[in-house]
Amino acid sequence: MADAKIRLYVEHPLGEGQTVPLSRDQAHYLFGVMRRGAGDALLGFNGRDGEWLVTVQEASKKGGVLRVEKQTAPQRNPPDLWVLFAPIKKARTDFIVEKAAEMGAARILPVQTDFTNSERIRQDRLQAHAIEAAEQCGGTYVPEVTDLQKLDRLLQDWPERRQLMFCDEALAGAAQNLGAVGGPAWAILIGPEGGFSEAERARLHALPFAHPVSLGPRILRADTAAVAAMTVWQMTLGDWR
Amino acid sequence: MADAKIRLYVEHPLGEGQTVPLSRDQAHYLFGVMRRGAGDALLGFNGRDGEWLVTVQEASKKGGVLRVEKQTAPQRNPPDLWVLFAPIKKARTDFIVEKAAEMGAARILPVQTDFTNSERIRQDRLQAHAIEAAEQCGGTYVPEVTDLQKLDRLLQDWPERRQLMFCDEALAGAAQNLGAVGGPAWAILIGPEGGFSEAERARLHALPFAHPVSLGPRILRADTAAVAAMTVWQMTLGDWR
Repeated sequence: MADAKIRLYVEHPLGEGQTVPLSRDQAHYLFGVMRRGAGDALLGFNGRDGEWLVTVQEASKKGGVLRVEKQTAPQRNPPDLWVLFAPIKKARTDFIVEKAAEMGAARILPVQTDFTNSERIRQDRLQAHAIEAAEQCGGTYVPEVTDLQKLDRLLQDWPERRQLMFCDEALAGAAQNLGAVGGPAWAILIGPEGGFSEAERARLHALPFAHPVSLGPRILRADTAAVAAMTVWQMTLGDWR
Repeated sequence: MADAKIRLYVEHPLGEGQTVPLSRDQAHYLFGVMRRGAGDALLGFNGRDGEWLVTVQEASKKGGVLRVEKQTAPQRNPPDLWVLFAPIKKARTDFIVEKAAEMGAARILPVQTDFTNSERIRQDRLQAHAIEAAEQCGGTYVPEVTDLQKLDRLLQDWPERRQLMFCDEALAGAAQNLGAVGGPAWAILIGPEGGFSEAERARLHALPFAHPVSLGPRILRADTAAVAAMTVWQMTLGDWR
């Protein structure tokens, strides 16, 4: 393995001896952009079956076929962590999705808060960013990116036994006693750049499953807060322990 | 204060009744881009004297004068934390500098490692990013961005009593017992995307002042690792405690 192998996300099942058809886009990327051809080896994963060595069996401009050779890494799923965030400017929204996928989020949920500017998102584009992050960072899991939904409705139908950590700029002390809460299912809520509204803040503080944390004495941008909050959670309750 | 005040970094001393001349660029930004004029109020800081309410005394296309009215926040310096990082692609390098300034780095030091591609950086551009981050995030301190230097030379002349935390992807366990090391002066070293060379890794592990930490079981991009590492440090040894 002189040169680093390409890692490609595919939707088909992966198992020894199976074949995987390539879409036009994948063929363009592999054969056009990356100059790979028949016989070349790469790595494939589908988010469920681990990572596999695959070889190119057929290559054309419009498609191709991969052959699945042998497993190179087992499937590794992240902790049961949802990441909720209020979409901001395009580049920083893309960044939050990329970082959530990298840091081990199981599910990414864009939410509309009182101070969110975004009325809509491009779910397909954000999902593609999550896939690319997994391809680049050696992951075998791809978090689902859901469609934009209103935070208050999501909180109304909140799943039983899922805890929620939210970052409150107005908090003075650290108060990060999440370890004592425990529990396997969690969500992190990153507020919008303008913070939460007073009504939202009051509601969040009153929810029995919601736990405020402070991210230090400085004002952080939403994308910074996302990575910092996931670090706090992973260190305290996740798989960094 | 109906609308959010502009925060402007200036180099002059700030004290009640003083006047501050504006550069051509600052005048262009304030009067051209932001449409402010004589009599308007904004906030000023210089990295040393806290934050001040200032008013526009004179405004022209080529310059202007601010008058310093009264202090709105005291000077707040970050912990004595240096952030060392190996420059990567332009956008992600800018991002690391922005995030280091936001998260409370006292000094930002781009370093050349064995696997760093960059031969040079634009120090003035990176310094401008650090200033912008302070302007946007309500900070009163601006970390100095130093010129690119070789990591091995920096380690050779390492200041006495400054501890170094470095992120080692090859580490299995968490091993984050930094709290036991203590000490007020620290540095964080973020490796390049390709990781450290074997020689660098061996050297780092042998240094008495260097402490390896793990950032979890996933491979993180350098910009993600920078924010995550600063979070670990701030929670354990910094001003988030």
